[in-house]
Amino acid sequence: MRTIDFAKGHGTLNDFVLVPDLDGSLDLSETDVRFLADRHAGIGGDGVIRVAPLSAAPADVREAAPDAQWFMDYRNADGSEAEMCGNGTRVFAQFLADRALVDAVVFPIATRAGRKVISRVEHGFRTDLGPWLLSRADEARGRGMDSVVQVVGAPDPLPALSLDLGNPHTVVALPPSISLEHLDLSVAPRVDPEPPHGSNVEFVRAIGARHISMRVHERGVGETLSCGTGAAAAALATWWWAGTPSDELTWRVDVRGGTLMVDIDGGSVGLAGPAQIVAAGQVSLPD
Amino acid sequence: MRTIDFAKGHGTLNDFVLVPDLDGSLDLSETDVRFLADRHAGIGGDGVIRVAPLSAAPADVREAAPDAQWFMDYRNADGSEAEMCGNGTRVFAQFLADRALVDAVVFPIATRAGRKVISRVEHGFRTDLGPWLLSRADEARGRGMDSVVQVVGAPDPLPALSLDLGNPHTVVALPPSISLEHLDLSVAPRVDPEPPHGSNVEFVRAIGARHISMRVHERGVGETLSCGTGAAAAALATWWWAGTPSDELTWRVDVRGGTLMVDIDGGSVGLAGPAQIVAAGQVSLPD
Repeated sequence: MRTIDFAKGHGTLNDFVLVPDLDGSLDLSETDVRFLADRHAGIGGDGVIRVAPLSAAPADVREAAPDAQWFMDYRNADGSEAEMCGNGTRVFAQFLADRALVDAVVFPIATRAGRKVISRVEHGFRTDLGPWLLSRADEARGRGMDSVVQVVGAPDPLPALSLDLGNPHTVVALPPSISLEHLDLSVAPRVDPEPPHGSNVEFVRAIGARHISMRVHERGVGETLSCGTGAAAAALATWWWAGTPSDELTWRVDVRGGTLMVDIDGGSVGLAGPAQIVAAGQVSLPD
Repeated sequence: MRTIDFAKGHGTLNDFVLVPDLDGSLDLSETDVRFLADRHAGIGGDGVIRVAPLSAAPADVREAAPDAQWFMDYRNADGSEAEMCGNGTRVFAQFLADRALVDAVVFPIATRAGRKVISRVEHGFRTDLGPWLLSRADEARGRGMDSVVQVVGAPDPLPALSLDLGNPHTVVALPPSISLEHLDLSVAPRVDPEPPHGSNVEFVRAIGARHISMRVHERGVGETLSCGTGAAAAALATWWWAGTPSDELTWRVDVRGGTLMVDIDGGSVGLAGPAQIVAAGQVSLPD
């Protein structure tokens, strides 16, 4: 039995088990990750983040972010490697700040999706998510929609827009006749045409000027309390439908787990929000 | 913000946050308990167990178990006080053993359901759950059944037996035509006549001699991976249906989270199984 250090934290209730590996010597197997993320047998989290020095990152990650000090080694709860996680970057940054492992106000981190720049902001951190794209630009340019989504709780298929933020998103603006609260997201929404690798699906309701509320169904997971890149996709889609006005560049997005702020700067997008480390200790990994 | 010690453990995947309060000075509010049991915002568990000295127990608990050294202050995940929890007693005992807070092989603990005697056994602990009763003895004595249960996945209402183990249970023996695996327990089974305070419902399939498999729907919670008193009720009902043979007093009960052993001794029943403490550390309680 091996005993290792861990911490637990969340950003808008998207929660993670962090494993400090400050000298980059830890070999965290898929089995270890599944155990750490298991909410009954282990600690429990939506994902696991190993905090490693840049020297412990794969060569392509080191090359993409040579000036980063720390590598965010993000794993899905099933043990597989993942590129990145928007909410996870803030929890990673909060951990670094709590342990005095960074002292700058703006600093780069290394992820499998490349170099990401983090800034300390009031009540949390902002992450530059980098460039975004319309997944099917030709279809979307005319009427602002490129597909339809079928979901339990809506009688007819709903028009939707697909975006790529490193991962695929399909955003639906709900008509006033359909309640955001009453959608049944226990059944996966169906996107038509079906995206080749599936899609996260966001359902959006306008609340006020540059203020939306959303629920999200994450592919392969189900409904979650928050999805960082999903919030960015939802704000981008709403901005797109409004005709990309140049004075509506900062959006408030209410998710089930809290509130995120999305800022749009030309072709790139930033995500800001809270992050908290709630516990730390030692955990025994099964043999 | 207050920072307190915690541990996390489970028995057959029924999991708990333990809070050591060895000098009995800790005031753990309902809000604190809800936070600790919250799987996204806090640590996460099916319940919270404060480990307190007997002197910190309420007067009636102290009187019922004057020779106990430790009080198992069990709380439900919603913050309310609960009498006891069968799987929880073993996790409590494992914590006491790990920290060298008990050294006897057999020792009493104090709970809100009175004095419970714990024994160390191979691969875990045994808890004497004390007396059990048929809830509706007059109806059950004739044909071994006293009610029916409707559940999604079974076309007709199924005959059932109600038992009281300090908490209410209704046990259903599945006919061969119905698969235990295919029952839909996401919808609460309906017991008729309806028990006044609701009931936990166990669905049982015979595997072999004194060996059963079960799934359980806990009242107010939903399907769980394990329920200690539910396993005892399932074994007792099967033994009752077999005509209470005097040579079938030890039963193996497979639950989704593992295996429990139930022993029947006249009017009382014992529950044995594994228990593990997997992590320990400090957690920050929100203000």
